[in-house]
Amino acid sequence: MYNFKNDYSEGCHPNILKKLVETNSIQQLGYGEDIYSLEAKELLKQKLGNSDAAIYFTSGGTQSNLLVISSLLKAHEAVISANTGHIFVHETGAIEAVGHRIITVDTDNGKLAPEGIQKALQAYSFRPHVVKPKMVYISNSTEIGTIYSKTELQELFEFCKGENLLLFLDGARLGHALTAEKNDLSLSDIGKFTDVFYIGGTKNGALLGEAIVFNNANLAPDFDYVLKQKGALLAKGRLLGIQFLELFKDDLYFKLAKHANCMAMKISDAVRDNGYSFLTHSTTNQIFPILPKLLIEKLSENYAFYEWKVIDENNAVIRIITSWATDETVVNEFITILNQLKKES
Amino acid sequence: MYNFKNDYSEGCHPNILKKLVETNSIQQLGYGEDIYSLEAKELLKQKLGNSDAAIYFTSGGTQSNLLVISSLLKAHEAVISANTGHIFVHETGAIEAVGHRIITVDTDNGKLAPEGIQKALQAYSFRPHVVKPKMVYISNSTEIGTIYSKTELQELFEFCKGENLLLFLDGARLGHALTAEKNDLSLSDIGKFTDVFYIGGTKNGALLGEAIVFNNANLAPDFDYVLKQKGALLAKGRLLGIQFLELFKDDLYFKLAKHANCMAMKISDAVRDNGYSFLTHSTTNQIFPILPKLLIEKLSENYAFYEWKVIDENNAVIRIITSWATDETVVNEFITILNQLKKES
Amino acid sequence: MYNFKNDYSEGCHPNILKKLVETNSIQQLGYGEDIYSLEAKELLKQKLGNSDAAIYFTSGGTQSNLLVISSLLKAHEAVISANTGHIFVHETGAIEAVGHRIITVDTDNGKLAPEGIQKALQAYSFRPHVVKPKMVYISNSTEIGTIYSKTELQELFEFCKGENLLLFLDGARLGHALTAEKNDLSLSDIGKFTDVFYIGGTKNGALLGEAIVFNNANLAPDFDYVLKQKGALLAKGRLLGIQFLELFKDDLYFKLAKHANCMAMKISDAVRDNGYSFLTHSTTNQIFPILPKLLIEKLSENYAFYEWKVIDENNAVIRIITSWATDETVVNEFITILNQLKKES
Amino acid sequence: MYNFKNDYSEGCHPNILKKLVETNSIQQLGYGEDIYSLEAKELLKQKLGNSDAAIYFTSGGTQSNLLVISSLLKAHEAVISANTGHIFVHETGAIEAVGHRIITVDTDNGKLAPEGIQKALQAYSFRPHVVKPKMVYISNSTEIGTIYSKTELQELFEFCKGENLLLFLDGARLGHALTAEKNDLSLSDIGKFTDVFYIGGTKNGALLGEAIVFNNANLAPDFDYVLKQKGALLAKGRLLGIQFLELFKDDLYFKLAKHANCMAMKISDAVRDNGYSFLTHSTTNQIFPILPKLLIEKLSENYAFYEWKVIDENNAVIRIITSWATDETVVNEFITILNQLKKES
Repeated sequence: MYNFKNDYSEGCHPNILKKLVETNSIQQLGYGEDIYSLEAKELLKQKLGNSDAAIYFTSGGTQSNLLVISSLLKAHEAVISANTGHIFVHETGAIEAVGHRIITVDTDNGKLAPEGIQKALQAYSFRPHVVKPKMVYISNSTEIGTIYSKTELQELFEFCKGENLLLFLDGARLGHALTAEKNDLSLSDIGKFTDVFYIGGTKNGALLGEAIVFNNANLAPDFDYVLKQKGALLAKGRLLGIQFLELFKDDLYFKLAKHANCMAMKISDAVRDNGYSFLTHSTTNQIFPILPKLLIEKLSENYAFYEWKVIDENNAVIRIITSWATDETVVNEFITILNQLKKES
Repeated sequence: MYNFKNDYSEGCHPNILKKLVETNSIQQLGYGEDIYSLEAKELLKQKLGNSDAAIYFTSGGTQSNLLVISSLLKAHEAVISANTGHIFVHETGAIEAVGHRIITVDTDNGKLAPEGIQKALQAYSFRPHVVKPKMVYISNSTEIGTIYSKTELQELFEFCKGENLLLFLDGARLGHALTAEKNDLSLSDIGKFTDVFYIGGTKNGALLGEAIVFNNANLAPDFDYVLKQKGALLAKGRLLGIQFLELFKDDLYFKLAKHANCMAMKISDAVRDNGYSFLTHSTTNQIFPILPKLLIEKLSENYAFYEWKVIDENNAVIRIITSWATDETVVNEFITILNQLKKES
Repeated sequence: MYNFKNDYSEGCHPNILKKLVETNSIQQLGYGEDIYSLEAKELLKQKLGNSDAAIYFTSGGTQSNLLVISSLLKAHEAVISANTGHIFVHETGAIEAVGHRIITVDTDNGKLAPEGIQKALQAYSFRPHVVKPKMVYISNSTEIGTIYSKTELQELFEFCKGENLLLFLDGARLGHALTAEKNDLSLSDIGKFTDVFYIGGTKNGALLGEAIVFNNANLAPDFDYVLKQKGALLAKGRLLGIQFLELFKDDLYFKLAKHANCMAMKISDAVRDNGYSFLTHSTTNQIFPILPKLLIEKLSENYAFYEWKVIDENNAVIRIITSWATDETVVNEFITILNQLKKES
Repeated sequence: MYNFKNDYSEGCHPNILKKLVETNSIQQLGYGEDIYSLEAKELLKQKLGNSDAAIYFTSGGTQSNLLVISSLLKAHEAVISANTGHIFVHETGAIEAVGHRIITVDTDNGKLAPEGIQKALQAYSFRPHVVKPKMVYISNSTEIGTIYSKTELQELFEFCKGENLLLFLDGARLGHALTAEKNDLSLSDIGKFTDVFYIGGTKNGALLGEAIVFNNANLAPDFDYVLKQKGALLAKGRLLGIQFLELFKDDLYFKLAKHANCMAMKISDAVRDNGYSFLTHSTTNQIFPILPKLLIEKLSENYAFYEWKVIDENNAVIRIITSWATDETVVNEFITILNQLKKES
């Protein structure tokens, strides 16, 4: 049974383990003051072309989201998210637990645009009987596989600045977005057109780890306190520093993401070639084919994936996720079986 | 300019002021241990026919909602509300500020029924990545003037028990619900078919004050701590006790609510007689007529009310609220003007 | 049995009730937009000589403390208080419940001075493993009856500014402080030598009510949201506005406080004349005589007061509180009995 | 420069890295459902002799403390800790940030006993104006190196049960406690005489990881939600499972701790032999020698450690921490230098 359920089924890229072994016995300062963390932060600032950025390493996405949002919002301020946003859908009320309402905007494609946010601002204008919208949360790639274009992100950022809103980008799958077909955003663009974002490691080859980037360090002068207070500051910060060092050496991070995308696109092409359609237009490592239920049942015998949504009596959507570690041989076999099952039907 | 914007424009019923004057110089214990508060609680328990109830007085609706919800839910638990629910619409994120998500259910009539809750439970079943629904919040009368029938409330309560959900009824306008046309619920029914509710004083003749009733005292053994911790325990609790004593002496509370309803129904009848319709089917003191914009403009010259929603180019919904203090002469004048404007149009 | 346990045993000054009756049927806007609240705020700004101040009315001391502190501190910031401070001793963890540590400084006289704060800053300097001190909380008069001199307050304020700390003064008994013997502070001094403070009504003749004053409105641009979110915004804000209007008309507020102080000083003198001493040097309406236990027992037959602390086998401290409403005849009787009991012993 | 500042200067025990490499490419379920985590939990339950226990893996001590405390306490409940307790001293207000006061008890030896707790209960008995003590937090070994005897822990636990208090043991250095000279507690004793505790991995050979043990699973039926909500649930839970599997295979965990203790005791003996004394009586891997400042200065040239506290003009306390990775050769050198410096002085 091969697992297409998520992009965190395996351990980490072997380079990381190799480096962990090599550096294991070298004494380092704790709590992120180790040389690997310091070097990794410098490297990321170079890649971003932004020496004013402040970078912090954390253990995961939900943790990063609650840290960033709670550190930037006051008690009566709220964050606007697509109704598909991870903070709204799959984080067990982590944002409400730190005191903030998530204002949702309905979308088809998982992305926010000025129009939708404008409506939310209007719906939340009856001061002081409603919360005050202060931040916009987006994901790139989104939770349904779509990506922002440079124009879209830039317009969104300018709109936010005009409305005195902070723009926060959840980059749990940022690598996949930036290496997707037709993507025209670079890492440094992300740094320019957001206030804060993070670079996801967990879903792209690390054992654990996200790198939160405040594009202007003044935005979060006390973030070290926040990390510690919320239980997010690892004693052995070296574990995070080493991973980001390895991932951003020779652009390994982007190579891994590209591999994941390619594997998904291979499957996508096969799905399309067999005449099936998709729930969303994804060019990244999460795809949502609409397939006959009988076919889904057959595929389930050898492959694990989520059944996402029932379409009608005979058809349903499945979610297939590929990763840096997805084996191309398995992908080819999967496609072969798909083609065969189609023929037989 | 006469104010139909809300039911808290005036001070309080004169009986209350009279009693405040009479008792003013009598020394009492502080923090709700005064004899008026103790007597008022006994009186309410008698009216409820429930000596096991635990009653606490607070200063307002938002305060009551956040106290009850935060005291009964654990951090990862959530409350289900109609999308029109006061806690979702008009409380500045008070519930999120104490850590809980509000799961909303879309409704036309402002009321919750088992079907809608069932869907919410299903949408929030992917443990542990989502919050755990644990409470249902309803209002009676609702924020759009509708009321629950006995059958509806009973079925809802039984459903909640079956699903291990607490049922909490916001009674900011409970008097208006229980004295509405066709209402078949009594105060003691409310005590039977909910876990906790409150009897709103602020919107029915008190200066301030709500009476929170836990139908079983075991549900909130430490609620006194909660009141104090959240800044809700008045040093001079006598101010609340005296008001509830007066309001529930000779059923003044219900007489006041009935007056408010009658005034609203007089206006409703006139609206209907003139051929206009309503946004919601209200039998209580909040009505939502759909009127021509020109007519609304004319009425606005002498009467204050909220413009609730635009229907189309020519028509809009207004909200008119009457109260225990609404002057029938003014209501009659309003109707006369309405009839006249209709004729002229 | 006459109650010397607190200064909130009676209702309110008769002028307030009179004004409530007079204005009762006049329609007003809700949520603090009534003309009485607006006028009262103007009046207070005049008394303060500060048109830049922003004033908000609340229902009590604990509520005011948690509102001010939670609105001004970020999650990782802490407030420094004397170990006798009300927020530390008698508010059921209200400050911790909104997320902040109270750093305590041991004192003999209930007052904070730069030296003690300096030590606290040093003890909390191991960033980021400790909270960041950001506010100093003091009470005037203090919880043990003492008061700040002008020099003391000014030095404290300047020290705070030098250390980038906010100075917050709890004025639950501010009237008593400002009318005490040897006091050299004025209301406008309080406005100059603090960042934020409140003027307590509840313990000086109001039914309920404190007036929070931000000396610079920029310090809390969104405090209206905070009030609403924490359940502190009364629908009938007129109840608070009317009270502060009456209390500050013709300086009633200060006359009431002075009466309370005088009654306490009469008892103090008698205690001293009989050869007894005190736990603290109070010149306000709370006094802490050290008396023989036998004497305490006798006094308890006719007067209610707290037994504060055991000194030794034969002696204990009691706390006697007088108020705006304390009856001088009763005070004289109390003194007579005290003198008599002394003679008999 | 050799680092004696802490026990997390190196990476992890080589067995762990070896196993990470071996298992790296095996697909596993996410979020702690991997087979390594399941096996590790089974293994720990066996070692504890308690199949009713519920075990959860987390990333660190502060995180564990805030998770356990926030999941078990209600808003108005407080935790009692020694004034040296890690939650009070070095966690940036993490416990207050989740809403709870820490009630401190002064101690000389870092340990709590019934007497001190009894006093705290008395000091916090003025309901509802104070928080309600509901949990006792202890550390073993303590933050100053001392350990609990079996009798002490048992008496404390029985006292807690009698007072309806939960007993929570912070085992960040539990291995060091259980392998210390004169220790008479076993791991299964810890399971019997506490309600909840954790087994620290970070400070005893893991890259990161603590194992929280609820001795009765009923105590925390929803802890999975809590983990996720607070950002503590790792997507690749395998990282934690594998480490605890390795640490508890062949009792490696205890061997590592014993090594750390032995290294500290060697240094202790040398300190004592040279005629110096200690701040605390430690038998574990943290020692606090009182040394002449001149000697400290010399030692600082080659060894890093914390200067803990100034004793007088000439003497100060230093803290030396050894670990599973401390090199005995270095320890011997350190002792040689110490002896030599003593001779020269």
